[in-house]
Amino acid sequence: MGSLNLKLEPVDLSHHINVKSKSRHPSPLKDIIKFMAYDGMISLAGGSGAGNRQLIQLAKELTEQVHAPLCEYECLLHPGNTNAWSKVVGLLCEDDDFVIVEEFTYPSAQALWIPLGIKAAPVSADAEGILATSLRELLENWDENATGGRRPRVLYLVPVGSNPTGISISAHRRKEIYAVATEFDLVIVEDDPYYFLQYPGYSPQGVDQPFKLKSTEEFLNSLTPSFLSIDTQGRVIRLESFSKTLFPGLRLGYFVANPLFTERLLRATEVETQDPAGLSQAFTLALFQQWGDDGYLTWLQKLQFQYKTRRDWLISAFYDQFTVVPAAESPVPTAQGYVACLEDKRSAKLLAIFSFTDPEAGMFVWSKFYFDDVPRFIELEGQALEDPEQAFAQELWEAMISERVLLTPGSYYHAWQGPDKMSTKARGADPRSAYFRFSFATPTREQIYEGVKRVSKVTSRFWKETI
Amino acid sequence: MGSLNLKLEPVDLSHHINVKSKSRHPSPLKDIIKFMAYDGMISLAGGSGAGNRQLIQLAKELTEQVHAPLCEYECLLHPGNTNAWSKVVGLLCEDDDFVIVEEFTYPSAQALWIPLGIKAAPVSADAEGILATSLRELLENWDENATGGRRPRVLYLVPVGSNPTGISISAHRRKEIYAVATEFDLVIVEDDPYYFLQYPGYSPQGVDQPFKLKSTEEFLNSLTPSFLSIDTQGRVIRLESFSKTLFPGLRLGYFVANPLFTERLLRATEVETQDPAGLSQAFTLALFQQWGDDGYLTWLQKLQFQYKTRRDWLISAFYDQFTVVPAAESPVPTAQGYVACLEDKRSAKLLAIFSFTDPEAGMFVWSKFYFDDVPRFIELEGQALEDPEQAFAQELWEAMISERVLLTPGSYYHAWQGPDKMSTKARGADPRSAYFRFSFATPTREQIYEGVKRVSKVTSRFWKETI
Repeated sequence: MGSLNLKLEPVDLSHHINVKSKSRHPSPLKDIIKFMAYDGMISLAGGSGAGNRQLIQLAKELTEQVHAPLCEYECLLHPGNTNAWSKVVGLLCEDDDFVIVEEFTYPSAQALWIPLGIKAAPVSADAEGILATSLRELLENWDENATGGRRPRVLYLVPVGSNPTGISISAHRRKEIYAVATEFDLVIVEDDPYYFLQYPGYSPQGVDQPFKLKSTEEFLNSLTPSFLSIDTQGRVIRLESFSKTLFPGLRLGYFVANPLFTERLLRATEVETQDPAGLSQAFTLALFQQWGDDGYLTWLQKLQFQYKTRRDWLISAFYDQFTVVPAAESPVPTAQGYVACLEDKRSAKLLAIFSFTDPEAGMFVWSKFYFDDVPRFIELEGQALEDPEQAFAQELWEAMISERVLLTPGSYYHAWQGPDKMSTKARGADPRSAYFRFSFATPTREQIYEGVKRVSKVTSRFWKETI
Repeated sequence: MGSLNLKLEPVDLSHHINVKSKSRHPSPLKDIIKFMAYDGMISLAGGSGAGNRQLIQLAKELTEQVHAPLCEYECLLHPGNTNAWSKVVGLLCEDDDFVIVEEFTYPSAQALWIPLGIKAAPVSADAEGILATSLRELLENWDENATGGRRPRVLYLVPVGSNPTGISISAHRRKEIYAVATEFDLVIVEDDPYYFLQYPGYSPQGVDQPFKLKSTEEFLNSLTPSFLSIDTQGRVIRLESFSKTLFPGLRLGYFVANPLFTERLLRATEVETQDPAGLSQAFTLALFQQWGDDGYLTWLQKLQFQYKTRRDWLISAFYDQFTVVPAAESPVPTAQGYVACLEDKRSAKLLAIFSFTDPEAGMFVWSKFYFDDVPRFIELEGQALEDPEQAFAQELWEAMISERVLLTPGSYYHAWQGPDKMSTKARGADPRSAYFRFSFATPTREQIYEGVKRVSKVTSRFWKETI
């Protein structure tokens, strides 16, 4: 009667399983496995899966230690979060459904849907994550006739260090979002590869500070509680990945979810992928055996420090190459966070180039560029193009490429609302602006400084033409 | 102008791509990869896939050496044939289609379809594989109204050492099948993990003969030409796997197909799985580097010999524990191959227990058990059950399990024709019989002998009650 057994029973969510997933049969080959284990059995029935009980056990131990879920759950291995998300869509969504996402979302998550006729129902966010009030409004006012689809039932979130925005959802906001999910019977898909990459905000004094190891307890307490940990009804499906914490291309992770969902996901696993690659499993198990109980969590603290350091390099480079001021004191006072400006020497006027928020997790800085002061943009605006913002963003991107610095265009991350909602105007996005994503995951300190210097050079050329 | 370029252009098969697959967009993130390679580029756009150009190159070299396809083709990596087949279904099939399969088929290949409403259109086989005449009849007489689906467009085959039947399709039969595929515009999916496990037929003198290495040329010439190698129109999609030749659970293989198909399969790969696991790729590359040019093919010869030896053990055990006679001389003269009988001591009558064909590839022996002489079966037949054959097969299987020997029930491999075509009668299968699959992939010689002895003991008990 250990405390592990004192879990809440999930509410009945079987109506969330889609028609195709409901009609999956168990693989008959799996029935046979239990007989293979009989004492003295000679199997002329072929081999069985090598089994992954140790890794599942490890996943459960980590889940208890880090999230201590309130509700009953199971863990099921998957070959990476891209595939995991594809299986969740196959579990929950019907063709032509809407899925609720953040306004800017990882493109592969959406490219999957386009052939299914599934569209995004985007919810806007502030620095604490998507707005629970906007989420509630979206659901309460959902119009099946106007949208052509039933009210969304799935909320897809990258709640920590979101790709591309870098935003992490605050603990308080999570509770609000969870309450709305309960009220409107949503399943929350918590795609959380960056969970352990949460770190303190940028401060000039913090740059180059040495690594200090915390106790495991202190480390875990410093992390925002996951949606899984506050779920009292079994409506959170958590996608865990070792790819971002051990190494990219490992293709190994696991679902943590309501047993109702993991059973159906297992049926899909049998026919769509089978177990993750054996070498990836063996490598991960061997590593955990060598590390011992807290070794992984110590490794994660060091990894977290690596990303904090790299974030510091990028933001320092902004301060170095631009005049960075709080948004309220900038030429665009309604912007979020900070604004990187260039000063026009003759007029002493500050020109807003881009705003950014300091990410306290992950590997991305999301930036919004302001085109009001750009003559070339104003020229394009006069040409009655369908999307002058996108046209200028493309020119700017190409100019940076000529200068040998590569950012990721924000257009890659627009929530997919269908082919009629692709332009800046049709999406209802802010006019005279566009987004770019900076990643600090791979370049060296020198490359980051030189890269930002090149961005400054290109923007200087476009923006300073004003005067 | 090397001979590699002198390939035929595939015929236009774009009408085979299904609606969903046609509407896949390329992932925008992939556009960016080409810019990362520019001289002096500083990428603040994140990492890209580690790249698998070396492995693709290796796949192409192997394909040229072993199959020398006549038509233009591309190679695309996939994480194992289960997933590869799932992607091919996603490429070619609409919901509620029919797919042509052998009469007995690997169950995971079909479990995938059941939720999609896809059904099997089975074609019967003789010792040389599925009958081209039956295939032609099926297509020519296809009745959309009676079947409720359009004429099948996809032919799925495991052409060597088929699971479960062990049958390999002869070179002559392949040409006939390919001609029908051309006439009726079929795409042939050649799922061929056992291609290199072709070996000579059983002979008592061949048992325990030592391994003799052939030249690479001689070895390759001993293998039946693949469908890929005779394809002049680009209508073969070949699924290659390293799992059966290097080790199980590697989850690494590749498609060889018309560039039209590989391009769409790549779009699915981007959103459904991404590249196969990095460790599996690195391991395979390292192995090939160490082996050198012909090392893999030498390894395959040794592996082939391993399977031949194991097949010999199983068939020898049949001869040891049963009276094995050619079908024509047996109590069931219309059977294929050989019949394992038990002699009733008092009447000196031979009782047919099961027939089998000698597999010349793979790891399975498929056996058909005859129930005419079994009192318990006749008792069940008198009980007006829906499927007395299946009921007795289940009892027989359970009796074997009690005796601690495990075979795979043939019912696992019935082509899925829908819920109304599951019983022996409804499927139009031979009455008073059922199938079991023997696998010789994993047990030792001693286990094989002991296992067959136990089968003999159990069948003896059921069959000899007659007298």
